[in-house]
Amino acid sequence: MKALVYNGPGRHAWTDVPDPQLQDPGDAIVRIDAVTICGTDLHILKGDVPETTAGRILGHEAVGTVESVGAGVQSVRAGDRVLVSCISPCGRCAYCRVGVYGQCRNGGGWILGHLVDGTQAQYVRAPFADTSLYPLPANVTDESALLLADILPTSYEVGVLNGKVSPGDTVVVVGAGPIGLAAITTARLFSPSRIIAVDKAKTRLDAALEFGATQAILVDDDPVATLRGIGDGLGADTVIEAVGVPETFELSTELVRPGGRVANIGVHGKPATLHLESLWIRNVTITTGLVDAYSTPRLLTMLAAGQLDTSKFVTHRFGLDEMMDAYDVFADAADTGALKVALFRT
Amino acid sequence: MKALVYNGPGRHAWTDVPDPQLQDPGDAIVRIDAVTICGTDLHILKGDVPETTAGRILGHEAVGTVESVGAGVQSVRAGDRVLVSCISPCGRCAYCRVGVYGQCRNGGGWILGHLVDGTQAQYVRAPFADTSLYPLPANVTDESALLLADILPTSYEVGVLNGKVSPGDTVVVVGAGPIGLAAITTARLFSPSRIIAVDKAKTRLDAALEFGATQAILVDDDPVATLRGIGDGLGADTVIEAVGVPETFELSTELVRPGGRVANIGVHGKPATLHLESLWIRNVTITTGLVDAYSTPRLLTMLAAGQLDTSKFVTHRFGLDEMMDAYDVFADAADTGALKVALFRT
Repeated sequence: MKALVYNGPGRHAWTDVPDPQLQDPGDAIVRIDAVTICGTDLHILKGDVPETTAGRILGHEAVGTVESVGAGVQSVRAGDRVLVSCISPCGRCAYCRVGVYGQCRNGGGWILGHLVDGTQAQYVRAPFADTSLYPLPANVTDESALLLADILPTSYEVGVLNGKVSPGDTVVVVGAGPIGLAAITTARLFSPSRIIAVDKAKTRLDAALEFGATQAILVDDDPVATLRGIGDGLGADTVIEAVGVPETFELSTELVRPGGRVANIGVHGKPATLHLESLWIRNVTITTGLVDAYSTPRLLTMLAAGQLDTSKFVTHRFGLDEMMDAYDVFADAADTGALKVALFRT
Repeated sequence: MKALVYNGPGRHAWTDVPDPQLQDPGDAIVRIDAVTICGTDLHILKGDVPETTAGRILGHEAVGTVESVGAGVQSVRAGDRVLVSCISPCGRCAYCRVGVYGQCRNGGGWILGHLVDGTQAQYVRAPFADTSLYPLPANVTDESALLLADILPTSYEVGVLNGKVSPGDTVVVVGAGPIGLAAITTARLFSPSRIIAVDKAKTRLDAALEFGATQAILVDDDPVATLRGIGDGLGADTVIEAVGVPETFELSTELVRPGGRVANIGVHGKPATLHLESLWIRNVTITTGLVDAYSTPRLLTMLAAGQLDTSKFVTHRFGLDEMMDAYDVFADAADTGALKVALFRT
């Protein structure tokens, strides 16, 4: 089959590889019908994720059709149309038992396109199929389901739920890329009074307003000072960090009000400075997290019921064999205006 | 009257000052029967708390007898024996309405010995008397009640409750000074499996074991490596930071397990490095906070019922007019072995 193979920092290719095989009774083989590229894949390409080694097929988000299942699989069978989640949990370890699937200690968690071969291919081996594949209702399209593989549960769990967004809140979302936009989409479920987007790019702020942000501030326009003029001037109840660089994290801790919450979603490659000399007294909660995908079934129900608008995320569509072009368009988002790219089996 | 006056960095004196007067209908004047000195007072003396200005009477913990009350005070009256809490909340602002009294926006919060004259004196003006003074049951001694003015609610709320200590947890308390020991005392209420104390001083670790720690590790003995050999080796469910320097905060974030919590109690004067490059993926929650003292009534009930052992905190006792000696003994805790000092009206 064809697959997108990571060949070490800076190098990737759409190339021939052996078809995946069932290795474990819990495995399924899934034919990929739709797949996307994540900012994390670009991090891997840059060499920021050293545990992903050369030769690895990338990708951790897909929709596909089950081809075959191992003897232990009970929840899906050949022919099922399924969501392939970025989290493949064993379902049995101490972390999985309490729903912290992203921290699975039994060889699961975020493994696809990271520690085992991923979804940017014609076929994928899906470990722990009973807990990593979700049969899709007929009225949910491949493209909209694709957004539930990672960005919607990630922004919802790690941003909105960890950040305890509540009715009437002032929410700031720092970074209006796909994850930030998904945070805006899911934050709206809790009826905050304000969702303020902060980004360095005007085009992304325009997208944020389209996705439901009530206000947009360029990072160069002093968001801290701007926030002092909003509401009681004390800052945001919740700040969702959706970038992953020290500057945006530190900005987030300046934007939060006493008693507020900073929910970090960003994938960080460097340490940040935590200004405890001012924060120690301010009753601030900071959370970090990899998605657990415990919310995926519920989000899927909401998607099927028309309660989640996912229509604006995918800006560029490709055939699966245009993978290299799709990477270029996604990596050059500043120029192409790409939010999510989707690739479909042809 | 006599009072301990802060005369700018490095200078303090037990000296004559005017008696305090009722200024507001919500005020009470309280005669000080017992008072203590807090690590925060030493911070102020060092000049670390610039909003506390020269001429200020220090002290934010006391037990006393109400001398007189303003026209608006309804909960206490002259002659009542009361706890004077470190938190004097207005009770009416948006923060007080949700129990976040330490962040009072209406001139309250931690004000005694900070923004208004404090309790290290023969008398104190207690603002917001209805919400800052707590009548004491007859069977609670002045000395034990004194520990409820600050260290017990602080360690309980900001350490144990923010840190969500739960049955069976592995809890690490970094810093075995009075606050750390109070954290050990109140963490035990939740039946953790292990309470591991970390400190640089053997004497403090001995105290920690006496207060109920199950294990003690010198900071020089590589607590991170030691923790890898305990339980499942993944680290602590909750780490309570009770020191307030960058090194101990950073150590705390290394000791916490994936999905765990770092509850910072320490008063910090400098920023710390937050290693987001490893923490972003680990589902860690970090909390900071000033005490709100919402737990004070409950802790008082428990104290009266004999459910909180406060007998080991006070190591040195003085007459009120020995204030300067008490400061010396407390500031030199490394040599004197002082935990809390208590001064009594003579």
